[in-house]
Amino acid sequence: MTSKDKATNGVRRGRPGYDQDSVLRIAVQAFNEYGYDATSMGKLAERLGISKSAIYHHVPSKQDLLRLALDQALIPLEAVVDEVGEHEGDADERLEFFLRSTIRILVEQRPYVTLLLRLRGNTELERAAVERRRAIDRKLAELVATAQAEGSVRTDLDSRTTARLMFGMINSVVEWYRDSGPIDGSALEQHAIALVFGGLHDTRAKSSAA
Amino acid sequence: MTSKDKATNGVRRGRPGYDQDSVLRIAVQAFNEYGYDATSMGKLAERLGISKSAIYHHVPSKQDLLRLALDQALIPLEAVVDEVGEHEGDADERLEFFLRSTIRILVEQRPYVTLLLRLRGNTELERAAVERRRAIDRKLAELVATAQAEGSVRTDLDSRTTARLMFGMINSVVEWYRDSGPIDGSALEQHAIALVFGGLHDTRAKSSAA
Repeated sequence: MTSKDKATNGVRRGRPGYDQDSVLRIAVQAFNEYGYDATSMGKLAERLGISKSAIYHHVPSKQDLLRLALDQALIPLEAVVDEVGEHEGDADERLEFFLRSTIRILVEQRPYVTLLLRLRGNTELERAAVERRRAIDRKLAELVATAQAEGSVRTDLDSRTTARLMFGMINSVVEWYRDSGPIDGSALEQHAIALVFGGLHDTRAKSSAA
Repeated sequence: MTSKDKATNGVRRGRPGYDQDSVLRIAVQAFNEYGYDATSMGKLAERLGISKSAIYHHVPSKQDLLRLALDQALIPLEAVVDEVGEHEGDADERLEFFLRSTIRILVEQRPYVTLLLRLRGNTELERAAVERRRAIDRKLAELVATAQAEGSVRTDLDSRTTARLMFGMINSVVEWYRDSGPIDGSALEQHAIALVFGGLHDTRAKSSAA
């Protein structure tokens, strides 16, 4: 389902050369470059090479662009949480699935996740998105706690702090990962999982690679 | 040395109630809240409860506020790089020292580091700060590579990607760490170091805590 299908405002009339998805993509680039607050609809129109009123053919407001953009990040991330909930395996396996899936979404939806992670919570809409993001964080912390209870994860670390540090590592991907390299998404996934579960001092990994 | 001592513009005349440091502190709060581009000197004056011209008694321009603020983060971080260079120990020890010191600075200089990490590189000044930050990243990657060569760190991970993931984890601290708890700076340092070096599956840590 694309963001266009999800639009509920009935405003889908396009302009030659743009549909709602491409307006959204270009808007998100601008938001990430200048900041959402500093990007006016006028600036956006300039960037798109169309008039301000032409943008309103695609979306009713700048706030709607933000809402649609944030959903591009939040909906797949929340789907992972649901999948993890339905997964039968032990907590350690579910934790790995959670982290791998999240990395994949971060790579695929990078501009949208970047926007989500930079939200300042200045408006009702922003605060609602931050709250949805926090709910995902809490699920990860719960999973760490369950894995600790099951004995597969060390118990000397606080589950909430551990979850924050892990998400911090993984979320940073949106800041520095580039499709052009030097490593691809699947190598990145391997690296992050190896580091989170095994740590730098994992001597088995060292000897197997030597 | 405070940012006031470092001011080289000769503009140190204060206004009752504010000195350059406190103007800087409040300006950085506003930059982090609204974004640097979206924070006008007029908005800042409003926040400080003084006139725009009164701000210019403390700093010549908004850009100077940014420069002073970024130095509050970059100067101590660069000092760590220098200290690591002078340290005699093996690379693994130096790596731990690097990470611990960085976490300490992030906790102490949180608003300034937040500003640094959110820079978009839209101006010459921003690009220069981003370049200084990248030089620090490269030092960390070099240290990982040296520790790999010395055999203390697993060799199946690319040193540059590993450095980025580690910095991602550590830098995230500025987004969620609060002086009010639930854990203090030194516990945070312990958590991050344990996770980076030992990983979640470190069974020795698990058995020692059990």
